[in-house]
Amino acid sequence: MKPITPRTAGMAALALLLVAPAALGQEIQPSGAEAAADVPVVVKYILDSFIMVLGGILVMWMAAGFAMLEAGFVRSKNVSMQLLKNITMYSLACLAYYLIGYRIMYPGDGWSIDGILGAFGIAVLEPVGLAAADADLDYATTSSDFFFQVMFCATAASIVSGTVAERIRLFPFLIFVAVLTMFIYPIQASWKWGGGFLDANGFLDFAGSTVVHSVGGWAALAGALILGARRGKYGADGSVNAMPGSSMPLATLGMFILWMGWFGFNGASQLAIGSVGDIADVGRIMANTNSGAIGGALAAMLVTYAIYKRVDLTLVINGALAGLVSVTAEPLTPGLGAACLIGAVGGVIVVLAVPLLDRLRIDDVVGAIPVHLFAGIWGTIAVVFTNPDANIAVQVMAIMVVGIFVFGASSIVWFILKASIGLRPSEDNEALGLDKAEIGVEAYPEFH
Amino acid sequence: MKPITPRTAGMAALALLLVAPAALGQEIQPSGAEAAADVPVVVKYILDSFIMVLGGILVMWMAAGFAMLEAGFVRSKNVSMQLLKNITMYSLACLAYYLIGYRIMYPGDGWSIDGILGAFGIAVLEPVGLAAADADLDYATTSSDFFFQVMFCATAASIVSGTVAERIRLFPFLIFVAVLTMFIYPIQASWKWGGGFLDANGFLDFAGSTVVHSVGGWAALAGALILGARRGKYGADGSVNAMPGSSMPLATLGMFILWMGWFGFNGASQLAIGSVGDIADVGRIMANTNSGAIGGALAAMLVTYAIYKRVDLTLVINGALAGLVSVTAEPLTPGLGAACLIGAVGGVIVVLAVPLLDRLRIDDVVGAIPVHLFAGIWGTIAVVFTNPDANIAVQVMAIMVVGIFVFGASSIVWFILKASIGLRPSEDNEALGLDKAEIGVEAYPEFH
Amino acid sequence: MKPITPRTAGMAALALLLVAPAALGQEIQPSGAEAAADVPVVVKYILDSFIMVLGGILVMWMAAGFAMLEAGFVRSKNVSMQLLKNITMYSLACLAYYLIGYRIMYPGDGWSIDGILGAFGIAVLEPVGLAAADADLDYATTSSDFFFQVMFCATAASIVSGTVAERIRLFPFLIFVAVLTMFIYPIQASWKWGGGFLDANGFLDFAGSTVVHSVGGWAALAGALILGARRGKYGADGSVNAMPGSSMPLATLGMFILWMGWFGFNGASQLAIGSVGDIADVGRIMANTNSGAIGGALAAMLVTYAIYKRVDLTLVINGALAGLVSVTAEPLTPGLGAACLIGAVGGVIVVLAVPLLDRLRIDDVVGAIPVHLFAGIWGTIAVVFTNPDANIAVQVMAIMVVGIFVFGASSIVWFILKASIGLRPSEDNEALGLDKAEIGVEAYPEFH
Repeated sequence: MKPITPRTAGMAALALLLVAPAALGQEIQPSGAEAAADVPVVVKYILDSFIMVLGGILVMWMAAGFAMLEAGFVRSKNVSMQLLKNITMYSLACLAYYLIGYRIMYPGDGWSIDGILGAFGIAVLEPVGLAAADADLDYATTSSDFFFQVMFCATAASIVSGTVAERIRLFPFLIFVAVLTMFIYPIQASWKWGGGFLDANGFLDFAGSTVVHSVGGWAALAGALILGARRGKYGADGSVNAMPGSSMPLATLGMFILWMGWFGFNGASQLAIGSVGDIADVGRIMANTNSGAIGGALAAMLVTYAIYKRVDLTLVINGALAGLVSVTAEPLTPGLGAACLIGAVGGVIVVLAVPLLDRLRIDDVVGAIPVHLFAGIWGTIAVVFTNPDANIAVQVMAIMVVGIFVFGASSIVWFILKASIGLRPSEDNEALGLDKAEIGVEAYPEFH
Repeated sequence: MKPITPRTAGMAALALLLVAPAALGQEIQPSGAEAAADVPVVVKYILDSFIMVLGGILVMWMAAGFAMLEAGFVRSKNVSMQLLKNITMYSLACLAYYLIGYRIMYPGDGWSIDGILGAFGIAVLEPVGLAAADADLDYATTSSDFFFQVMFCATAASIVSGTVAERIRLFPFLIFVAVLTMFIYPIQASWKWGGGFLDANGFLDFAGSTVVHSVGGWAALAGALILGARRGKYGADGSVNAMPGSSMPLATLGMFILWMGWFGFNGASQLAIGSVGDIADVGRIMANTNSGAIGGALAAMLVTYAIYKRVDLTLVINGALAGLVSVTAEPLTPGLGAACLIGAVGGVIVVLAVPLLDRLRIDDVVGAIPVHLFAGIWGTIAVVFTNPDANIAVQVMAIMVVGIFVFGASSIVWFILKASIGLRPSEDNEALGLDKAEIGVEAYPEFH
Repeated sequence: MKPITPRTAGMAALALLLVAPAALGQEIQPSGAEAAADVPVVVKYILDSFIMVLGGILVMWMAAGFAMLEAGFVRSKNVSMQLLKNITMYSLACLAYYLIGYRIMYPGDGWSIDGILGAFGIAVLEPVGLAAADADLDYATTSSDFFFQVMFCATAASIVSGTVAERIRLFPFLIFVAVLTMFIYPIQASWKWGGGFLDANGFLDFAGSTVVHSVGGWAALAGALILGARRGKYGADGSVNAMPGSSMPLATLGMFILWMGWFGFNGASQLAIGSVGDIADVGRIMANTNSGAIGGALAAMLVTYAIYKRVDLTLVINGALAGLVSVTAEPLTPGLGAACLIGAVGGVIVVLAVPLLDRLRIDDVVGAIPVHLFAGIWGTIAVVFTNPDANIAVQVMAIMVVGIFVFGASSIVWFILKASIGLRPSEDNEALGLDKAEIGVEAYPEFH
C-alpha cells in the first residue's frame, strides 16, 4: 500500500463515505440511526418525516371512504345524516386528539400513572423553521407524527358510526365520539404505541388491528347492544328484515377509498423510509396490504357462492375490508401468499359473522363489527404465524385487556347518554328518516 | 489535542460532514441552500421538486372535487352540463396557462411593465435528461413548478363554475374561463408570486386565500350579478325559492376530495422539504390545514344549530371548505388551536353570508362566494394575528387592489359576452334543464 | 496554489463532495449510478424505490376509476354486477400476477425460451429488514417493483370488463381474466419490459400504450366479437338502440380518478427520481400526461360540436381518457404543445370510432376499444414524432405482433369458454338485469 498523502486522505474519506461508510458511521452517527448506512442523517430524518406526512394524507382520505361506504349502506332516508355524522365526527375526533388525546397517547417521560395513563396537555408542534440543531434527528418531526397519528384516532371513531347508523341522534353520537377520542382510544393506544405496559410485555400490533380497528369495533358493539336494533329489523317471530343499502356504487367507492388509504395506514406505520431496510420493508408492507385485501375479497366471493349459490356484493366489499384489517397487525413479516391467506380468513369470518350477528339480533348496519372487531382479533392472533417475536399468550392477553377496557368504558358512556339525554329519535322520526326529521336536508330530494 | 495526521484528517472530514456540517456548509454551499444543512444540494433539489410534483397531483385532484361538489349541489336536470363544464374548463385553463398564463405570472427578469405586467410566451420545460450542471439548484425543476402552478390556475377557474351554474350556456362560460386563466388570474398572481409590486410591498399570502380563492370569488360575483338569478329563484314578493341540490353524497365526496387536495395546495406551497426546517414546516402546514377545516365544519354545525335548531349538511360542507380557504393565506405560523379558530370564523362567515346573498338576490348555486371570496378575505386579514411580518394595511390594500382588478376585468368580460353572443339559455331551455337542452346527455336517465 | 495540509485536505474532500463530486464519483460509485451525480447511491436507491411505491398506490387507485366509470356507463340493472366484476377481477389479477405473471414478465436470466417466454415461479420479495450490503443498488427494491408492476397487470384486465359489460356472467369473465393476467399479459409484456425480443429490436413504449392499453383493448375486442352485442342493441333494420349509462357523475368521477392515477402510471414509469435528470423528467412526464388528457378532452368537445352541433359528455370523458392513452407510449420527449396535440388526435379518434363500431355492430358498452386500443395504437406510432430513437417500422411491427398474439390467444380462450361453460346469461336474465338475476343485490334498490 502506498503511503497516504494529504490529497489521498481526502479521496479516501470520500470513497469511504460513498462505498463503505457503515462501519465508520457506527461511531459517529447518533445512536438511533445505524440503519441509515450511508444516508446522511438529516436526509433520513426528512424522508422518515415525509412518509408520515404522506401517510397522514392517505389516512385522512379514509374518512371519505367511511363516509361513502356508510352512505351507500344506509337507506336513502338517512343518507344526509350519515354524511353529516361522518364529517362532524371526524372533525371532533381531530379536535379532541389535539386537546387531550395526543399527549395521553404519547406521554414520553410524562406518564401520569407509569405505563397506564399518559400525560395531559394539548399537542404542541415544533416552532416554525425548526433548526437542524434543535431537531430530534433520531425520529422524525413532531408535526408529521401528530398529523399521522391524529388520523388514526379519527379512523377508530369512524368505525363506530356505521354500526349505529339510522337510529341514533346526532348530538348523543358526537358526545360519545368526543369521549372515545379524548380518552378511550388514546389511553389504550398508549399501552402499545406510547410505550406502555402492553408494549413492555411484548405485544405486537404493527398498524393497529387491535389498537385501532378492534377499538372501533368494541365501541360499536357496545353501542349496538345498548342502542338496540332499528325498528322493524327483527320480527317478533325471529325473522330478519333485510334493509338493503341505498347505493352500491357509493359503498364500492368507499371500499376502494379505504383500500387506497390503507397503504398509508399500514405502509407509513413503518415510520421510516430513510434506509435500505426501511424502504424495502415499506414496499413489502404495501404489497402485503394489497394481498390481504384481495384474499379477503376472493374468499368472500367463493364462500358466499358456496353457501348461497350466488355472490353477494356487500359481502365481497366487507370481505376486502376484513382482509385489510386482518393484515394490519402484521403487514411486514408475511410473504405475499401468507398475507393473502391471512386476509382470506378475514373474508371468511365476515361471511359467517354477518348472519350470526343477525341471529343474535345485533343490528350492525354496515357490518363494522365483523370487519373491524372479529377480523381485528384474528389479525392480531395471526401475527404469531409469521413473526417469531410474537407470543400467542401476550397477543391474546392484549386483545382481552383492550377489549375489556374499551367495551366497558364505552358501555358506561353509552349508558349515561341513554339515561340522560337519550340516544334514539322518536319512533315517528326513525320511520320518517333522520334526514327529514333531524336535519331537513334530503340526500336525493328529486328521486322520490 | 493530538496532531492531525492525514488519516485522521479524512476521518475528521467525515465526522464534520455527518455531525456538524452546518457551520462549514455555510461557506462552501451555493448561496440559496444555506437551509439545507448537511443535505447534499442535489438531494435537496430533488426533494423540493418532488413535493411540487406531489402537490400538483393533489391539486389536480381538486378538479374532481369541484366537479363532484357542484354535481351534488345543482338540480339533476343540470348535472351533466355541470360535469361537462368542469372537465372542459379545467382543460381549457391548463391550455391557457401553458400558452400565456405561466409566463405572465412568472416573468423572471422579463417583465413587460416592471412589477405589473409579466412576460409573453409559452411555457418551456427543461430538456429531457437535464444535467446537474445545467440545473438551477437554488430552486427546483421548472417542470415540477409548472405542473404545480398550472393546477392553481385551474382551481381559480373552478371556483367560478359553481356560482353561475344552471343558467349559463357552455361556450360563453368557456370563453370567460379562457380570459380568466390567460390574463386575469396570472396578471394579479404575478403581483405576489411572480415578485411583482404586491410582493415588493410586503403582502403575505402563503398559498392563495387572495391570489387564488378570492380571485375565483370576485369573478364569480361579477358573473352572478351580470348573469342574474335562476328563473324562479326569487319571487316578486321577496320570497326565496329553495332549489335543493340533487345529491348530498356527491357534494360530500367533493368536499372530502377538496380537503385531501388542499394538503397539496397548502403543503406543497412551502415549495421545499429538503431541509429540517422545511419538512417540519410542511408537517405543520398539513396539520394546520386540517385544523382549519375541522374548525370551519364544527363552527358551521354549532352556529346553524344555534340559529335554526337543526344542523344543515350543506352549510357544514361549505363551512369545512371555508375553514380551508381561511387558513390558506397563512397555514404555517398559527398553532393548531389558532388555525382551528381561524377556520371556525370562516365557517361562521359562510353560515351568515349564505342568507345574506339571498337577501341581496345574488344567486350563488353552490355558495362559492361566501366560501372562496368572503373566507378568502378573512383569511388574508387573519395573517396579521399569527405572522409578525404581516402588515394589516398592506393586507387590506392587496385585497382591494386584487378585488378591484379582478372584479372590474371580469365584469367587462361578462358584459361583452352578454352583449355579443349572450350568456343565458332561453327560458324554455333553462326550465327544461341544460342537460336535455344543450348537450342531450341526461345525468340519471333511468331515474325520472 | 498553497500547499495542502492535512486539515485543508479534509476541507477539500468536503468541498469536492458538495460542489463537484461528479467527476470523482464516476470512479468510485457502482456502475449503474453514474446519473446520480452527488446523490449518495443509497439515497438514490431509496428515492427510486419510493416513486414506484407511490406509483403503485396511484395505479391501484385506477381500479376504482374503472369501477366508477363502468358503473356510470352501464344501465342501473347491471351496476352491482359491474362493481362486483371490478373488485373480483382486480383481486384475481393481483393473485395471478403473484403466482405466475411476475416471473414470466421479469425472468431476469431465467428465460424459458430466450426473449420469448419468461420464467415460472411465484414472486418473492426481499427479506424483512434488507441490509444495504444485500441490496441491488443499481435499481430499486423488488418489493416496490412488484407493487408497481402488479397494478399494471390489473389495469390491463380492467380495460376488458367495460366492453363486455351487461351480458357476460361473472365466472366465465373471471376465468378469462385469470388466463389474461397469468399468461397473455405477462408473456407479451416480457417481450418489451422484461428485456425480450421487442425490446432487443428497439421497440419503444414508455408506460404501455401497447403493452398495457392495447392489450386490454385487443382482449376486449375479441370478447365483444365472440360474445355478441347486448340483446336489443342493434335492430334487424340496422338501427342502433342507444342504451344510456345510468350515472354521469359516476362516469365523470371514474375519469378523474383514472386521470389522477395516470400520474402514477406514466410518472413512476420513469422508475427513478434520484438524480437531477430523473426528477426533471418526472415533472415533465406529469405535465405532459396532463397535456395529453386536456388535448383529448378539448378535441372531443370541438369535434362532437362540429359534427353534432352539441357536445356529448360521454365522448368528452372518453376523449380525455384517449388523450391519456395516447401520450402513454411517450410521455417524456414531447413538449407540452406536442403532448397536447398527440392527446387531441386520440380524442378525435374516439369521436370517430364510437359510431364506427356501432356500424360494425360491435357492442362496446363503455367505449374501451376506441380509448385503449385505437388510441393506444396511435400513441405507439406517435412516438416517432418526438423521440429520435423510435423507428416507425419497429413500432408498427410491435403493434402487430402484440395484436396478433393477444387477439389470437384471447379469442381462443373466449371460444373455449363459450363452447364449454358458456358466456352469456339467459335471455330472461339479461332482460331482468344481472343484478337481480345473478347476484341478488340491486345497486339502487329504492329508486325504481
